[in-house]
Amino acid sequence: MVFHDETVKEILDRYKTIWSIGHALGLLSWDNETYMPKGGVEERSTARAELSVLARRLLLDERFVELVERALGKEGLNDYERGVARVLHRQIRIQKSVPEKLVFELVKTAGEATHVWREARKRGDFQLFKPYLAKIVELRRSYAEHLGYEDHPYDALLDLYEEDLRVKDVDSIFERIVPETRRILEKVVAGELFPSRHELEEVVYEREAMEKVNREVVTILGYPWDRGRLDVSPHPFTITIGLKDVRITTRYEGRDFRRTLFATIHEFGHALYNLQVDERLKMTPLASGASLGIHESQSRFWENIVGRSPSFIDVVKPVLDKHLGFTKKYEKEELYRYFNIVRPDYIRVEADELTYNLHIYLRYELEKLMIAGELSVDDLPEQWDNLMEELLGIRPRNPSEGVLQDIHWSSGSIGYFPTYTIGNLVAAQIRHHVESKLGPLSDLIVERRFEDLRGFLRETIHKWGSTFKPKDLLLRQLGEPLNPEYLVNYLNEKYLRETG
Amino acid sequence: MVFHDETVKEILDRYKTIWSIGHALGLLSWDNETYMPKGGVEERSTARAELSVLARRLLLDERFVELVERALGKEGLNDYERGVARVLHRQIRIQKSVPEKLVFELVKTAGEATHVWREARKRGDFQLFKPYLAKIVELRRSYAEHLGYEDHPYDALLDLYEEDLRVKDVDSIFERIVPETRRILEKVVAGELFPSRHELEEVVYEREAMEKVNREVVTILGYPWDRGRLDVSPHPFTITIGLKDVRITTRYEGRDFRRTLFATIHEFGHALYNLQVDERLKMTPLASGASLGIHESQSRFWENIVGRSPSFIDVVKPVLDKHLGFTKKYEKEELYRYFNIVRPDYIRVEADELTYNLHIYLRYELEKLMIAGELSVDDLPEQWDNLMEELLGIRPRNPSEGVLQDIHWSSGSIGYFPTYTIGNLVAAQIRHHVESKLGPLSDLIVERRFEDLRGFLRETIHKWGSTFKPKDLLLRQLGEPLNPEYLVNYLNEKYLRETG
Repeated sequence: MVFHDETVKEILDRYKTIWSIGHALGLLSWDNETYMPKGGVEERSTARAELSVLARRLLLDERFVELVERALGKEGLNDYERGVARVLHRQIRIQKSVPEKLVFELVKTAGEATHVWREARKRGDFQLFKPYLAKIVELRRSYAEHLGYEDHPYDALLDLYEEDLRVKDVDSIFERIVPETRRILEKVVAGELFPSRHELEEVVYEREAMEKVNREVVTILGYPWDRGRLDVSPHPFTITIGLKDVRITTRYEGRDFRRTLFATIHEFGHALYNLQVDERLKMTPLASGASLGIHESQSRFWENIVGRSPSFIDVVKPVLDKHLGFTKKYEKEELYRYFNIVRPDYIRVEADELTYNLHIYLRYELEKLMIAGELSVDDLPEQWDNLMEELLGIRPRNPSEGVLQDIHWSSGSIGYFPTYTIGNLVAAQIRHHVESKLGPLSDLIVERRFEDLRGFLRETIHKWGSTFKPKDLLLRQLGEPLNPEYLVNYLNEKYLRETG
Repeated sequence: MVFHDETVKEILDRYKTIWSIGHALGLLSWDNETYMPKGGVEERSTARAELSVLARRLLLDERFVELVERALGKEGLNDYERGVARVLHRQIRIQKSVPEKLVFELVKTAGEATHVWREARKRGDFQLFKPYLAKIVELRRSYAEHLGYEDHPYDALLDLYEEDLRVKDVDSIFERIVPETRRILEKVVAGELFPSRHELEEVVYEREAMEKVNREVVTILGYPWDRGRLDVSPHPFTITIGLKDVRITTRYEGRDFRRTLFATIHEFGHALYNLQVDERLKMTPLASGASLGIHESQSRFWENIVGRSPSFIDVVKPVLDKHLGFTKKYEKEELYRYFNIVRPDYIRVEADELTYNLHIYLRYELEKLMIAGELSVDDLPEQWDNLMEELLGIRPRNPSEGVLQDIHWSSGSIGYFPTYTIGNLVAAQIRHHVESKLGPLSDLIVERRFEDLRGFLRETIHKWGSTFKPKDLLLRQLGEPLNPEYLVNYLNEKYLRETG
């Protein structure tokens, strides 16, 4: 056992009930997106809301809070025990800072706003969504005031999604990577180093055949079918129902097969993280990832750094040729080009590896201004379009491919987007450390040494669960803080074949 | 709204949390049997146990109990309001009578016993299972003492599954139907009125084709796919996740297609009950059936009285011919005979409509003796075999096809079996009332007036949920108490073409 302290043991014993509610909420949410008959919506929503309130109530139970405070002040705890106290203290602090009334108002507004947003996006009508967004910004500003911050109200929101992340950190990251990305992008576009379109984008596939491809590919990467599933949902996601039950989903659009392939590999990366958490942490508050950013680093690592590399074509081509057939006539180099189309485009979720962070930067800047009260939602669409033009040289033709494209704001998430870029940074940083330890990644991939790769990730990141804060995890396990140079180097190498 | 009383409204508001836990437990259990990867077992068991304890704790919450007691004593409540108070009072009474320690011990013993039973059944080794069964009988006797009874300790257990059902009722039912069934059975066997074997039992089917048959048949009967699903599980079941999400499962053994067909129709009958409960009762303690027996009457009605009738062949044959093909060469009369094989055999779940109640009677007699302390588990296998021989004229060749065949005892259920026979009785009784109201059932079926049939069942039984006790429901809605004569008449008519 890793837990010896009596106070921590009592905490964990009580926590099992909260964990069980989380376990149930996980399954309810998985079912919601996969198999639930549509008539079940209303009862399901009520059950989820009730169970969330119940979990909050148990977390804030007087005796439970007292035990957590006591553990927090204790000397001589080991890393895991300290982790338990830290994670729960943080959850309690957040829940306690925000009045229940505000929580409910945000949940309620977000529920309505998501419906309205869908309609607004369909119609391309920002005015419809505007009052809801204004309300959400106002509620989130109020959140920030309740949570507290030192420099910038947006800091309080960033911290909700990525512990300890601050505006000054994100600013300095983007200061480094935005100009660099734009420089690389200009060269790639000017020199046609990568295609901006590919005929395979239009090729239709059979869903059953493609499902076989996806299953075979994640099997090769090491997805354990006795502890997971691959299902279909409108938006791909990973859900951790338990450490031995981590499910992924994908979607099949019917053409442009790289989309479903890379969505599946992306989710595999998320799933592997939780599947490799130390089993002794099961049913504890440590049985998840260190943060959203670290989690995203795992999905991006497998999707982009492994999946979109030249050597991965060796692994995936036989699988494609076996099930899809139409890929046979394409050389490996051609598939590599198809997988790595570079095209400044409107939609974030379809963006390539190079332009992706520019989409995030745009949202980050606008969110920061809105939360600071320096940008009104009235002016948002124009600001969006202007910034888009400045960054990517294109101007949305309507709000649906501009300011209305993401679900995040309607669901109440402000401060979330930067974690995607953190993920890209950490993925590149991990790549460096993998290569220092195991040799060139291209060799590992060609030789299918995925077990070694999984082992490295397990020992370095996964097994710790959320024992350490994200910053501490990197310092302790990689020996250095978050560093954007690795991403800069990686992008230069990949897109310009220049070493940094 | 059907709920006006302030106390009842407060009860229902608080009950939403308990309902939500039940909703989650329903989905956890469905997932367990259908899609859960096998690695998830341990965490799932913990979550289910924790959530059950949590629901119990909320039910026994001081303020909640006080509200229920207050509602129970109130004058001027309507049927629904009284139903809420009655159902919750009963649940609280049961939970309060039995010490938590005893609940836990039974759950724990049953958990182990189910594993041991599976192994014992596989090996045909009763000795392996015996100590566990002895322990379960002892625990259930203790339950009976805690719950209290007037005449017979088994009464307390019967009441757990079928409110108000007593040994004297069940005795008088079997006194009427056992000799009558045996008389009919002897004539059927002697006169070869129905086949005892049929070549279609051996015919192999394609699972995909058979799934289409099952889906089409329940669609014809009126299963609403926007409020349900049909999946596959080792043992077919129905689960009510909400009034608008009632799922069924079936299984495919690969041959003898009537087994999966009738299992599916059986589950459809269960599902229809909950799907037709008055929507205004959603998320309340009334949002389920009146009792296990009444529930079983609905599944048996559709499976046997509708599904195994001569006229149903008109409905099902085109569907079979379309998807299975091999049925084309069989005349309707031949399919009818195949659906109605009569064969005294060892296994209850494979028993035909006629011999089924004899299997129940056997278990009932043995359970009653064990709970009264008049039969030791040492003597159980021999008593089983003797009684089997006496009732059905066959003697099991090993314990696996005798005393070890059912899961019920290992899971701690004693007193449950009689509800199956209650179901058969009520189904036949309902048939009589359907015909009085709507005309001959055979016409309804041939004319596919299933909407009328569903309407009758909805208005008579379903819509009330568990508003009334089972006895009161029959009295009020059919105008008479439970009466075995309807089953006797039905069996005489069907098997001997004699009207009673």
